[in-house]
Amino acid sequence: MKNVLLLGATGSIGKSVLSVISQNKESLNLIGISFNKNVSRYQEILEKHSPDYVYIEDHDSFKSLCSKDKERYLNGDEELERLINRDDVDIIVCATSGFAGLKTAYIASKTGKKILLANKESIVAGGDLILSLAKANNTKIIPIDSEHNAIFQCLSGEKSTEDVKSITITASGGPFINASIQELQHVTVEDALNHPNWKMGKKISIDSATMMNKGLEVIEAFWLFKMNPSKIEIIVHPQSIIHSMVQFKDGSIKAQLGVPDMKIPIQYALTYPRHLSSNWERLDFFKCGDLTFQEPDFERFPSISLAFRALDLLGTAGTALNLANDITVGLFLNEQILFTDIPRINEVILEEHPWIENPTLEDITNLEEWVKEKIYNL
Amino acid sequence: MKNVLLLGATGSIGKSVLSVISQNKESLNLIGISFNKNVSRYQEILEKHSPDYVYIEDHDSFKSLCSKDKERYLNGDEELERLINRDDVDIIVCATSGFAGLKTAYIASKTGKKILLANKESIVAGGDLILSLAKANNTKIIPIDSEHNAIFQCLSGEKSTEDVKSITITASGGPFINASIQELQHVTVEDALNHPNWKMGKKISIDSATMMNKGLEVIEAFWLFKMNPSKIEIIVHPQSIIHSMVQFKDGSIKAQLGVPDMKIPIQYALTYPRHLSSNWERLDFFKCGDLTFQEPDFERFPSISLAFRALDLLGTAGTALNLANDITVGLFLNEQILFTDIPRINEVILEEHPWIENPTLEDITNLEEWVKEKIYNL
Repeated sequence: MKNVLLLGATGSIGKSVLSVISQNKESLNLIGISFNKNVSRYQEILEKHSPDYVYIEDHDSFKSLCSKDKERYLNGDEELERLINRDDVDIIVCATSGFAGLKTAYIASKTGKKILLANKESIVAGGDLILSLAKANNTKIIPIDSEHNAIFQCLSGEKSTEDVKSITITASGGPFINASIQELQHVTVEDALNHPNWKMGKKISIDSATMMNKGLEVIEAFWLFKMNPSKIEIIVHPQSIIHSMVQFKDGSIKAQLGVPDMKIPIQYALTYPRHLSSNWERLDFFKCGDLTFQEPDFERFPSISLAFRALDLLGTAGTALNLANDITVGLFLNEQILFTDIPRINEVILEEHPWIENPTLEDITNLEEWVKEKIYNL
Repeated sequence: MKNVLLLGATGSIGKSVLSVISQNKESLNLIGISFNKNVSRYQEILEKHSPDYVYIEDHDSFKSLCSKDKERYLNGDEELERLINRDDVDIIVCATSGFAGLKTAYIASKTGKKILLANKESIVAGGDLILSLAKANNTKIIPIDSEHNAIFQCLSGEKSTEDVKSITITASGGPFINASIQELQHVTVEDALNHPNWKMGKKISIDSATMMNKGLEVIEAFWLFKMNPSKIEIIVHPQSIIHSMVQFKDGSIKAQLGVPDMKIPIQYALTYPRHLSSNWERLDFFKCGDLTFQEPDFERFPSISLAFRALDLLGTAGTALNLANDITVGLFLNEQILFTDIPRINEVILEEHPWIENPTLEDITNLEEWVKEKIYNL
């Protein structure tokens, strides 16, 4: 039996993780969770899973709950760190969304435990830091977003990444795969949230529509698999059946496929290296339609180029791009900027931020203030 | 440097093996070869590769050559066995075509060396025998036909085949993928040899046209991967881009892809577990077209059902089916029977042969006589 600590339990990844744990009660136990302030969703989780420990980021939400059970409810950085480091926590799922996930991934990377990373921002912003700490502390990182989990599966059993010609990240192309530049300027929030294949949170749905999501995944692949940017490529594959591929130097290609369901990579990561039975939907090759491929359009989707630019610059570049994107996506969701303003503003921040070659966690946190101020004054 | 013994050097697989060895001179050396009687092709090989030892199956061909170099030329079962067992032979490629390959695979399986199996007949006819001997003698068998090599690659790094839901062998469907039962009755040898994706020898091209090739591959997968027949399935995938897949119990699917070029699995097997650089053609996802899938038609292609029937029966059933098919394909190539007679006669032999549960190599050899006589008297 493995005890799982689920950080970011009230989000969409959290929901899938809880569903996987429910299906594997004989091998997985939910020992603790964290959330920010979605108390009503938390009440549902409590009823069904009753975790022993509950860390609440938002102080008011914490206060409203902790009077009922002082042992169960935790708040404040120190208690979070203590929870993550508990001896009886075996697996840590880092699914806290946005930039806040960096802090938890940072602490988790030092534990020597198995950690499941759903929060791509933490790798994008703090990849160097977190991967180095994980290596030094023998912490096993398993990515659970579908693309990196696919690459992880394709590399499993391979002698060395030396034989890899390229990592090929597939992209659905999002809801605007066939939109013109002119049409992109006028898309609404509703249009952008309407992803053809995956049901996801708002932030990641917008990232998918701008293809910034693929950009972030390129940066993530760079850190997770220690892969030169010239060896990372994107192929648009609208059906999202092939989740990603690894192309080897001999011309052999390995791919991981399936229905677009986050529970598959999550269960694989939680029960790694097993592929345990599950009762969810399976891919039917006779019904899934033809698999098609097309080249990504860097002109209509400049976010992809920004990601490669960030890998040219390294240092704080990925952090700055990610921070900028967190804010610009928020502004778009509030209808304060246009869809095409997202990459435009992100680029300004990427190029103009006070670049630091080897940032500390503090440098990264300070950069957040600078980026916010800069964007609100643009 | 690894010394390679190539058995069956003058065939189409032999040609690809020689091409791979030429490309990897710093790590692979052709120490010896065998062939039956294609002396003119042998002269070309001699010029380019100059193997130290040459085993010649056909006695007249042997006599015509051995006077020139007594050390180099070998003939007779004993010398073949001695050659296979030489200490300086590291890798044995079993590419002797047809039923004759069984004998060499049998000897090779006892060596404790790495053997590359191209000869599917030897596994189909003698799977139980050869795989047991290989296991007992710590002989590493790597399949090199594209489908089983793909499955081998997809299983690499996996904990156990216990987690496998199914092995999915892809089939191009052959040249008659869309032909009606009536049309199949009247196909010519020329039509049947015209495979859409792979350039291969005559025997295997006909097997591909009848889909007996897939049937043999199903039996081969059963022995190689110790997989229950209910877990082996065939999907028609006319582009031959996905070479085969493994579906796991959690819904995750791994596939191996590439251009249809035997050199890829051959080099991988020779240099396993590496994927060394090569200069041959690579798959271009933007030019390969859409990947499509369809269900196999057991009515138009009864050979597939015969294979599953042979796995129901086990014992000598696979051997009988394979022996019958060797002969019926020959009769079709000589225009002595119709295309649709091939599976019809194969079925008679499969059902009526003197079945033995645990055949020895001698039983298998005796069965050959029975099958020949039976077919010629039908």
